[in-house]
Amino acid sequence: MDALHRSGCPINLTLEILGDRWSLIIIRDIMFGNRRHFRELLQNSEEGIASNILADRLKRLVERGLLTRADDPTHKQKAVYSLTEMAIDLVPLFAHMGAWGRKHLPVSEELSIRAELLENGGPTLWADFMDELRAQHLGKALPPGTPSVLRRLTDAYLEVVGRRKSG
Amino acid sequence: MDALHRSGCPINLTLEILGDRWSLIIIRDIMFGNRRHFRELLQNSEEGIASNILADRLKRLVERGLLTRADDPTHKQKAVYSLTEMAIDLVPLFAHMGAWGRKHLPVSEELSIRAELLENGGPTLWADFMDELRAQHLGKALPPGTPSVLRRLTDAYLEVVGRRKSG
Repeated sequence: MDALHRSGCPINLTLEILGDRWSLIIIRDIMFGNRRHFRELLQNSEEGIASNILADRLKRLVERGLLTRADDPTHKQKAVYSLTEMAIDLVPLFAHMGAWGRKHLPVSEELSIRAELLENGGPTLWADFMDELRAQHLGKALPPGTPSVLRRLTDAYLEVVGRRKSG
Repeated sequence: MDALHRSGCPINLTLEILGDRWSLIIIRDIMFGNRRHFRELLQNSEEGIASNILADRLKRLVERGLLTRADDPTHKQKAVYSLTEMAIDLVPLFAHMGAWGRKHLPVSEELSIRAELLENGGPTLWADFMDELRAQHLGKALPPGTPSVLRRLTDAYLEVVGRRKSG
């Protein structure tokens, strides 16, 4: 990127940070799949991300303030990645990207059921999901008994997968 | 991209189409700047897009159904680019990208005033703006006397530019 031509336009700055194919894919997998370790992100990748690209993008996302990296207390050799508030704030953007993709592109049923729920839930559901992510990733407390949005999204996904396997 | 690993996830498919630094920048300039010719897009680019990249991305965006290209009846040698319904449907996504950028990144005042108005206007303003884009790009009729959202955004931008120059 030509440093002479950086502009202060919010769309441009956002694309400077997130405008590559993989950064948002990785944040998606951490956010919706709760994949917190390098190996999980690599092995479960639906898009088959390459190990060197994953390592590069994780490093960049940490440098740019979208992820934090900490030693996992349960596995001495492993690092655990967490979303920052800046990344959690991408939930509405993901909801809109998912809605646009569902409307205009040949999405698969099992991989779009979560986007459908997120779209239909609207800003209220997004806010609940963001609170839940803050609890998971930033250690903020949630009122006891708060229903899990991620559980609901995951259950709906597994239900479609199961239905298609048995169908 | 490895064709073996294409996934049907709506986020992934959206990024396959729009997940590069330039595609959304070009759509932004056509949408908010009403730049319809190659030369305007090249010469007015705040980010200094290179001519070969602009040509490549315009071609791709036409192939992928986000833009149409037609001969300009007023300039025989020129092509005029128009947004399709698929691209016009990106307005809410731009609004959210702009809002996220304004909140988390070092945006400039003059290049973020339009994002601010779009954010504050919410879904009602986005719908009005999309109707206006449909009139401009798809030739759909608007009721006579409909106030122009683009004019309002442009005026606000020019006002900030003027204030900063005289300040």
